Amino acid sequence: MKSFRKELWFNIPGRRGFVNITSQVADCLRESGVREGFVLVNAMHITASVFINDDEDGLHHDYEDWLERLAPHAPTEQYLHNRTGEDNADAHLKRQVMGREVVVAVTEGRLDFGPWEQIFYGEFDGGRRKRVLVKVIGE
Amino acid sequence: MKSFRKELWFNIPGRRGFVNITSQVADCLRESGVREGFVLVNAMHITASVFINDDEDGLHHDYEDWLERLAPHAPTEQYLHNRTGEDNADAHLKRQVMGREVVVAVTEGRLDFGPWEQIFYGEFDGGRRKRVLVKVIGE
Amino acid sequence: MKSFRKELWFNIPGRRGFVNITSQVADCLRESGVREGFVLVNAMHITASVFINDDEDGLHHDYEDWLERLAPHAPTEQYLHNRTGEDNADAHLKRQVMGREVVVAVTEGRLDFGPWEQIFYGEFDGGRRKRVLVKVIGE
Repeated sequence: MKSFRKELWFNIPGRRGFVNITSQVADCLRESGVREGFVLVNAMHITASVFINDDEDGLHHDYEDWLERLAPHAPTEQYLHNRTGEDNADAHLKRQVMGREVVVAVTEGRLDFGPWEQIFYGEFDGGRRKRVLVKVIGE
Repeated sequence: MKSFRKELWFNIPGRRGFVNITSQVADCLRESGVREGFVLVNAMHITASVFINDDEDGLHHDYEDWLERLAPHAPTEQYLHNRTGEDNADAHLKRQVMGREVVVAVTEGRLDFGPWEQIFYGEFDGGRRKRVLVKVIGE
Repeated sequence: MKSFRKELWFNIPGRRGFVNITSQVADCLRESGVREGFVLVNAMHITASVFINDDEDGLHHDYEDWLERLAPHAPTEQYLHNRTGEDNADAHLKRQVMGREVVVAVTEGRLDFGPWEQIFYGEFDGGRRKRVLVKVIGE
């Protein structure tokens, strides 16, 4: 069994944002030499997500509005977590809706995707350097 | 390491619906010959889900009502994504709540499940043929 | 390829609660002898979750309040599922938001985690013995 590991780094300037990381994950897969197996792609931070959906700007605005309705950032005092001096409790909630990780099948050396699947990094508490882990196992 | 891949196809007549796919996944596992490993089951479309929960009709109605409250289909103009000519933005949101994929342990050649676990395909934008990927790795 | 399987048992006295199971999962990993691979940790019950987030009490209260707003327990008659004699429909909904499972990379024999990642068992219908499955595959 082969295994491969790489960290991808991001620094989203605002509080929130989505970045298409599909080509970076595909590069990791090529580098791994794995032809059949699984790729795990996960946020290494608990206020960020990795998820698979559509690369369409309107949809990303819809996600932003919807997550803000489900788990509003302000007033920050509504969350006990923010008594620790943080203001990011909402980010811990938003990340649960969007998920921590995706597992993608590897078939004949490629990400085994349907027609519109793209992998995104979802940032909910940006303005600093944060990481995504790509781990490939297989043969 | 063995690996196995199969696509399952669905055509849900209405906009939304849930289908129990456990026996189809168990068939794939048998066909794979894998005794110890993991099965990944994922929607290949970004307006559908694969999830594990209870095979109980009342609960499926509850999911339907609840998801429609969290991310209503209408008015379709509330979503920027629908300016592309689509009317399925809500389906992209509902799918995030229910999830894209499940990973199930394989032990002694069987899906290693608790007493009530069943795998479902969740359709949120039906009326056309769509796919689920089953990928097994192990020995 | 090596594989390893263990069940962790919990009995949460109240209806809901969160338990940090990171050290128990790390013990399983050590026992498995796997140095490179994946660990799957999943609830074996469909009214419970396994998820990764912060070990901070205030945040856990925030999750509790937030999930109760998104999918309230009462009135129990609002859910068709509860006509079966159950009162736990809300638990099936809450578990979808928090997720069934996590897949964690194993690197050099350790859980390959970012600085704050901790694994939790999330109970939404407690008062009885329930299980989590830990399955490790790799080399």
